[in-house]
Amino acid sequence: MKFSFKNDYSEGCHPNILQALLQNNTDQQAGYGEDEYSLKAKEQIKTKMNKADSDIYFVSGGTQANLIVISSVLKPYQCAVSAASGHILNNETGAIEATGHKVLSIETGDGKLRPSDIIPVLENHKNVPHQVMPKLVYISNSTELGTIYQAKELEELSDFCKQNNLYLFMDGARLGHGLTAEISDLTLERVAELTDILYLGGTKNGALIGEAIVINHPALQEDFAFNIKQKGALLAKGRLLGIQFSELMKDDLYFDLAKHANQQAMKIKHALQKKGVQFLSDTHTNQIFPILSNKVIEILSENFEFYVWKKIDDQSSAIRLITSWNTGDDPVNRFIEIIEKEL
Amino acid sequence: MKFSFKNDYSEGCHPNILQALLQNNTDQQAGYGEDEYSLKAKEQIKTKMNKADSDIYFVSGGTQANLIVISSVLKPYQCAVSAASGHILNNETGAIEATGHKVLSIETGDGKLRPSDIIPVLENHKNVPHQVMPKLVYISNSTELGTIYQAKELEELSDFCKQNNLYLFMDGARLGHGLTAEISDLTLERVAELTDILYLGGTKNGALIGEAIVINHPALQEDFAFNIKQKGALLAKGRLLGIQFSELMKDDLYFDLAKHANQQAMKIKHALQKKGVQFLSDTHTNQIFPILSNKVIEILSENFEFYVWKKIDDQSSAIRLITSWNTGDDPVNRFIEIIEKEL
Amino acid sequence: MKFSFKNDYSEGCHPNILQALLQNNTDQQAGYGEDEYSLKAKEQIKTKMNKADSDIYFVSGGTQANLIVISSVLKPYQCAVSAASGHILNNETGAIEATGHKVLSIETGDGKLRPSDIIPVLENHKNVPHQVMPKLVYISNSTELGTIYQAKELEELSDFCKQNNLYLFMDGARLGHGLTAEISDLTLERVAELTDILYLGGTKNGALIGEAIVINHPALQEDFAFNIKQKGALLAKGRLLGIQFSELMKDDLYFDLAKHANQQAMKIKHALQKKGVQFLSDTHTNQIFPILSNKVIEILSENFEFYVWKKIDDQSSAIRLITSWNTGDDPVNRFIEIIEKEL
Amino acid sequence: MKFSFKNDYSEGCHPNILQALLQNNTDQQAGYGEDEYSLKAKEQIKTKMNKADSDIYFVSGGTQANLIVISSVLKPYQCAVSAASGHILNNETGAIEATGHKVLSIETGDGKLRPSDIIPVLENHKNVPHQVMPKLVYISNSTELGTIYQAKELEELSDFCKQNNLYLFMDGARLGHGLTAEISDLTLERVAELTDILYLGGTKNGALIGEAIVINHPALQEDFAFNIKQKGALLAKGRLLGIQFSELMKDDLYFDLAKHANQQAMKIKHALQKKGVQFLSDTHTNQIFPILSNKVIEILSENFEFYVWKKIDDQSSAIRLITSWNTGDDPVNRFIEIIEKEL
Repeated sequence: MKFSFKNDYSEGCHPNILQALLQNNTDQQAGYGEDEYSLKAKEQIKTKMNKADSDIYFVSGGTQANLIVISSVLKPYQCAVSAASGHILNNETGAIEATGHKVLSIETGDGKLRPSDIIPVLENHKNVPHQVMPKLVYISNSTELGTIYQAKELEELSDFCKQNNLYLFMDGARLGHGLTAEISDLTLERVAELTDILYLGGTKNGALIGEAIVINHPALQEDFAFNIKQKGALLAKGRLLGIQFSELMKDDLYFDLAKHANQQAMKIKHALQKKGVQFLSDTHTNQIFPILSNKVIEILSENFEFYVWKKIDDQSSAIRLITSWNTGDDPVNRFIEIIEKEL
Repeated sequence: MKFSFKNDYSEGCHPNILQALLQNNTDQQAGYGEDEYSLKAKEQIKTKMNKADSDIYFVSGGTQANLIVISSVLKPYQCAVSAASGHILNNETGAIEATGHKVLSIETGDGKLRPSDIIPVLENHKNVPHQVMPKLVYISNSTELGTIYQAKELEELSDFCKQNNLYLFMDGARLGHGLTAEISDLTLERVAELTDILYLGGTKNGALIGEAIVINHPALQEDFAFNIKQKGALLAKGRLLGIQFSELMKDDLYFDLAKHANQQAMKIKHALQKKGVQFLSDTHTNQIFPILSNKVIEILSENFEFYVWKKIDDQSSAIRLITSWNTGDDPVNRFIEIIEKEL
Repeated sequence: MKFSFKNDYSEGCHPNILQALLQNNTDQQAGYGEDEYSLKAKEQIKTKMNKADSDIYFVSGGTQANLIVISSVLKPYQCAVSAASGHILNNETGAIEATGHKVLSIETGDGKLRPSDIIPVLENHKNVPHQVMPKLVYISNSTELGTIYQAKELEELSDFCKQNNLYLFMDGARLGHGLTAEISDLTLERVAELTDILYLGGTKNGALIGEAIVINHPALQEDFAFNIKQKGALLAKGRLLGIQFSELMKDDLYFDLAKHANQQAMKIKHALQKKGVQFLSDTHTNQIFPILSNKVIEILSENFEFYVWKKIDDQSSAIRLITSWNTGDDPVNRFIEIIEKEL
Repeated sequence: MKFSFKNDYSEGCHPNILQALLQNNTDQQAGYGEDEYSLKAKEQIKTKMNKADSDIYFVSGGTQANLIVISSVLKPYQCAVSAASGHILNNETGAIEATGHKVLSIETGDGKLRPSDIIPVLENHKNVPHQVMPKLVYISNSTELGTIYQAKELEELSDFCKQNNLYLFMDGARLGHGLTAEISDLTLERVAELTDILYLGGTKNGALIGEAIVINHPALQEDFAFNIKQKGALLAKGRLLGIQFSELMKDDLYFDLAKHANQQAMKIKHALQKKGVQFLSDTHTNQIFPILSNKVIEILSENFEFYVWKKIDDQSSAIRLITSWNTGDDPVNRFIEIIEKEL
């Protein structure tokens, strides 16, 4: 069986999580997120964020988190704005629109949004009441293209949103990877200060399932639990989510796992760079998009699974490689060996 | 800590499931339900149902299953009908209405629907196009009141639905309990023949999470996966659902667990009956609703957790006791002892 | 052709309206409700209501007004409550649910809601977050059964709503008829003081189309125009609505028309009462529901159109008769003649 | 008061319509579109279209028609595609998304869609079930940029849609103008043959309100009336719509009015062309977009109202001029005089 670099959710979960599930399996707990594990995990996250007043809810996956957050924040005539590469625009089967809200798409080369990207959208939506009202800025960190926000970028965006009465929502499906990128100068605390609402991804960082929605803006906290339940996201056995996040938050497991994934990707990246390979985007996280000749891609395909991401010309394409918390040295080394041999 | 008879999702999951999660934790699998475990589990269910042509999808919980099924089956102007005690009417925060569909409520004493209950609703919805069009009959088995459908009842209802061009949808959150009730003459195969769409509940019968939606009617199968994804219910690590259902379907674990839960409830029921206690409804599953004096309820409350379900008069109320796959003999015996002493 | 007592929208509109449409046909006006006629009509209504700070919007019909108001007021998990006879529950094809909101139905004999009707609903919806949150009380005046609210009743309901943090919304499709009923002690000013939002019906009181939504509660006024547009209710030629309401508000035309309709119904009512006929409800507006023998109903049917409303027993049924702003003396007298002859 | 070239709905309606409303004002008619006038108008349209089997419904306005059609045609996970200039994308406050459906935007210079525009969208939406499924192609004729479809273009698009299992929906808010453009080789009959569903606009072509939805594809006809009612679009006094369309369809009034509007615009266009003025798009209908210097625009603004549509550079902008069924020779001549003097 070929090793897969297709995504970061191919394996199960970190062993600590399974261990904790085993140890706590038979005690009786309150349902629907009122169990001790969930309560503890929420405290752990708040402590790490230095945000005692934030509200936290656990849900199963990213699309679910996105649709619940956006539909609960917006009034019927309000919309979200997103980079064109945003997950909500491309990979969620219209989940946001299904809740009644438009998502305005903004073309940006690197998957990030800057105030200068958003200003024209605001300018073009002033024909009241004939157009939707932009009200929420959706960003992901790391982005769908593997890029990250630096502190200054997020500060500028946050300021801009406040000045323009926009909510800032960060999709953190890969927040661990974004914050532990070697070049990142952003911290979880700072992210919590600069966003109105966000989620920390578990699914792509060592959990079986689970994303932790963190609501920082007080106005968005009111009655939020109703939205979770109404969208079918309130697990009867909330302990499953609580136990996982409690384990991930112990010491720095969450960040250690992400850092490991990043490092494995960077090893491949550096090996490719030495050979003069170009990349679709300049990434420092667990996703890389090298541009390779079709011949090399074919050889790699015989040994590994990955997505051919984008055709560049008749001779070459960009591929996407993703590493995970569980990607060992062996497949990475084998990949590098082939690269060094074939390039 | 008091033992809780509040519900059947207070504990974790059956040990076999945890064992399987451990054993299969690190192999790489395709995401989004295309993993081997999910594919195998689907085959196991089809075999048990003798329904090779049915389509099966796993989702996390009951509200999610209900809202996905109903919103995918109905056109915008069509509605569901449900017994007034139906879960979709009372305990899902308007999840069905949030997808745009009305649920018509029918008062019935025992939580079950018969053709004679539905006929007047059809009669009263003929003012085209000024009224919603009833199109789907929602039933649960066992019901929210612990009662069950017998084969003849389900056959009559199924015939009626076919004659009236209605889809029959069974919420099987507690289907195991319904089918293993000592008086039940219904089988899983027969249920599959008689319904258009249904789900088998895992959450309330020994899984951590998970319900298996089974689509029997060919017209309802088309493109169903889109609905799962759009509602945020498609888990990236579908293996979590596949592994669980594969374990539950091995031998007859699913039914053994339900039968056990039923038996524990029946022990208490019989002890209460011996003392002449009356019940709110005549149940043979893992839910019982004995009517007790306030004084006895108070004494029981000192030792156990349970819901006081309905005030009967100033002196007495009905309580709800639920047993689970994991309810041992000890709490049952202790409960019976108190009953025998106090009554 | 038989004269029809089926409803109050069988004829066109009051001649003054057509005259105004003719006179103002060719002047150029701003679109989308910014025309002079609409602006003037809004001022006329505010003056009559003594509500300078209310916001007013004109839309085409009642279902449209109801769905726009309710969907704009409620958050996704909130619901409306209505008497079981409410138009939104029975005659709008699930229009409210289609916007995502449940409507809780309350059985009341006379189509009216009192605090005592609503209290149990609030009591039964405290299982947070598993149930919808009641947030808006929908009433109609006159009701779908022809009954009306008196000042004291509306005051008590308004107080109750304020105390319980509920919005009070009055469907005034037949508000003119309600306020001009001979026994009514309620005024338009008082209605405006006691409700958060309401609409004055034009369609059933002499206009071609048109309902005037009046928003009294400041929190509900924000950005309301977006909702009108998004639901497809913002007419390009808003002048059509403005001209009509401006004419209806001149002098007391709106109330004169409603009073006339009421009086014609009352003539028939009194003639029936003299003969000892019973009624389904005690009405003083333009709807009456006499209970007659099948034989008399058959004779009347040969001469008039009307709805047989409800079967009482094998020998008799209640019929519904509705008079309009344009119902002349001739059909009323002919109806009374038959009654006097046959009873 | 300055004459306005801002739009084609500034005036009231054609005098024949008012005359008909006057003549038929007091006869009693069935409600909700079952009146004689509506029935007759539907037959007139079918005859003109040579489409005896089409179903026709009248609604008040364009946004309403668009949202009803699209939400009734699509399943929850399906989406519409539209040229980026499409009315549903820019001027309807997210009305389509509010019904749960995404609209994919395609950049095209002239507001028209060709198969070559749509193919890449289909190619990019094959990641089942993670993306919405394109299912309906939305076009307008004449377009929002004043351009039109020729027979060959519509035939190619229609063939393409059939081959790709897509529904073709034409927004005909200005269909009269599109078909009577002097260069048009398309007829109403041919449009009916080539589209699955469309609407003929009344509001922008001499009616007070009203669009006629024509459903050609049999599968889309089933139960359509429910959708009209549910969205609040079913007028109690349907006669208002029926009378208007019946008048517009008499002889060729509908086309005569559109042709007149086109001709008035073309007079201005030709005068501008003589002076060497460039246009944003090459139009032959009642919308023209000349590019003028800011100085000339200022002078024109002192005499006329119109929209400055798009800044071209610091010295010049494109303006939008729209003529209507009621635009007389006088304002057109005055406009031309200024042009001839100032250019």
